[in-house]
Amino acid sequence: MNKSISPLELRHQIRSGAFNSNTSGYSRGFVQGNLCILPADYANEFLQFCHANPKPCPLIAMSGSPGDYQIPSLGEDLDLRSDIPKYRIFEDGVLVDEITNISQLWRDDLVAFVLGCSFSFEEALIDDGLDIRNVSEGVNVPMYRTDIDCNTVGRFSSKMVVSMRPMVPSDAIRAIQICTRFPSVHGAPVHFGEPSRIGIKDIAKPDFGDPVTIRPGEVPVFWACGVTPQVAVEKAKPPFCITHAPGCMLVTDLPNSHLAVM
Amino acid sequence: MNKSISPLELRHQIRSGAFNSNTSGYSRGFVQGNLCILPADYANEFLQFCHANPKPCPLIAMSGSPGDYQIPSLGEDLDLRSDIPKYRIFEDGVLVDEITNISQLWRDDLVAFVLGCSFSFEEALIDDGLDIRNVSEGVNVPMYRTDIDCNTVGRFSSKMVVSMRPMVPSDAIRAIQICTRFPSVHGAPVHFGEPSRIGIKDIAKPDFGDPVTIRPGEVPVFWACGVTPQVAVEKAKPPFCITHAPGCMLVTDLPNSHLAVM
Repeated sequence: MNKSISPLELRHQIRSGAFNSNTSGYSRGFVQGNLCILPADYANEFLQFCHANPKPCPLIAMSGSPGDYQIPSLGEDLDLRSDIPKYRIFEDGVLVDEITNISQLWRDDLVAFVLGCSFSFEEALIDDGLDIRNVSEGVNVPMYRTDIDCNTVGRFSSKMVVSMRPMVPSDAIRAIQICTRFPSVHGAPVHFGEPSRIGIKDIAKPDFGDPVTIRPGEVPVFWACGVTPQVAVEKAKPPFCITHAPGCMLVTDLPNSHLAVM
Repeated sequence: MNKSISPLELRHQIRSGAFNSNTSGYSRGFVQGNLCILPADYANEFLQFCHANPKPCPLIAMSGSPGDYQIPSLGEDLDLRSDIPKYRIFEDGVLVDEITNISQLWRDDLVAFVLGCSFSFEEALIDDGLDIRNVSEGVNVPMYRTDIDCNTVGRFSSKMVVSMRPMVPSDAIRAIQICTRFPSVHGAPVHFGEPSRIGIKDIAKPDFGDPVTIRPGEVPVFWACGVTPQVAVEKAKPPFCITHAPGCMLVTDLPNSHLAVM
């Protein structure tokens, strides 16, 4: 499939079952989002958790009322029940299934949250000429559990998970400037340099994703990561929850540039 | 003298000879500038050198025509010949005198340049709650010669001189964000971490200024420094040149906040 397919056309291909893989690299220039669907009983607390932890949980949009499976502001004819290539189903915080359509599971009390994803800022960094190692090495970005506490809200709490991209310091400074413009896709990094300062024991062994090469003169640069809210949801153990499967994102009609605050 | 004295009143005190010391900490909130006065024959090249090297040589203002000793945009009743506590006189690139008034030396072919100074961004960082070590330890900021080449323009060339402030990484990230707003006072840092990467052999032995404490967990953060154009002028060896003496700045009526580009 042509990677420059429009977001609407890609969603239709996904809905029809013709496309069911990783969305990375498709519909370049448009925002791809993390999805988290919770029962209304948990939704308000999760919303407050996102607001209290904007770097790991940058909220781009949520459904208007419980039961809504469309978010018109994110895209034309967008259906949250069918337009993601792969969904994960959790019961009491435990992964129980991975499926390509959730229409059969939809309920009137479900509320959907769409959170920003690093694809958007990686695109901005690459467009500025920076090397994003996980992209140039063709692997998933390395992610690590840290000892940084998120702000707890009700049943939601977590240590922050971070993603890491190695850079020489002058590139890291440029990346901080660029990412500052994009607070809704994790914003500026939270740390650089010595991994043990944020509780990471072995930079060569990420907790999620793949390791990448760190070259001489480069320092690891760490961003708050969208896996954090997934960890918080697993800990909160809601009776029912649906998320996207890693890398299988909600592709929206929003241009990445619309997320820039300046 | 009351440190919160207005810039105009401070300039009058300087002009009268009542004040002849370091201006650091006086007239807080207002821009203090580096001064460089050159014969017209060198002025256009120096102007181009500043434009080609905006980080070490951020031009805030210059005099309108050769011989002008006022820059009305910088302050009411401001006289460049008398309103700086201490001037340095250079002949053929060699320091020959240090005096408190240059009226007797003024010539019809002199052009004045006022360049941004780190006092402005240090104030913004302190206001945000960051510890600026040279300020909290009450010493001059440590400055180092690097192996970073400036862009050469005509007779002006130099390696970049940098100032250093130690910070933990999360504070350094915040400092990069804040300083990015202030391109006319050196802007974002140019490097952090390993000093040898920019040709600094011993961080404990600055080439100018004083050493400061680097605490465990902190990294040195390096900014382009206004000593760079002074080195370029010394190398160019113009027959005549006047600068401010270190720390004895031109205090203007411009609020520091006016330098913020966003």
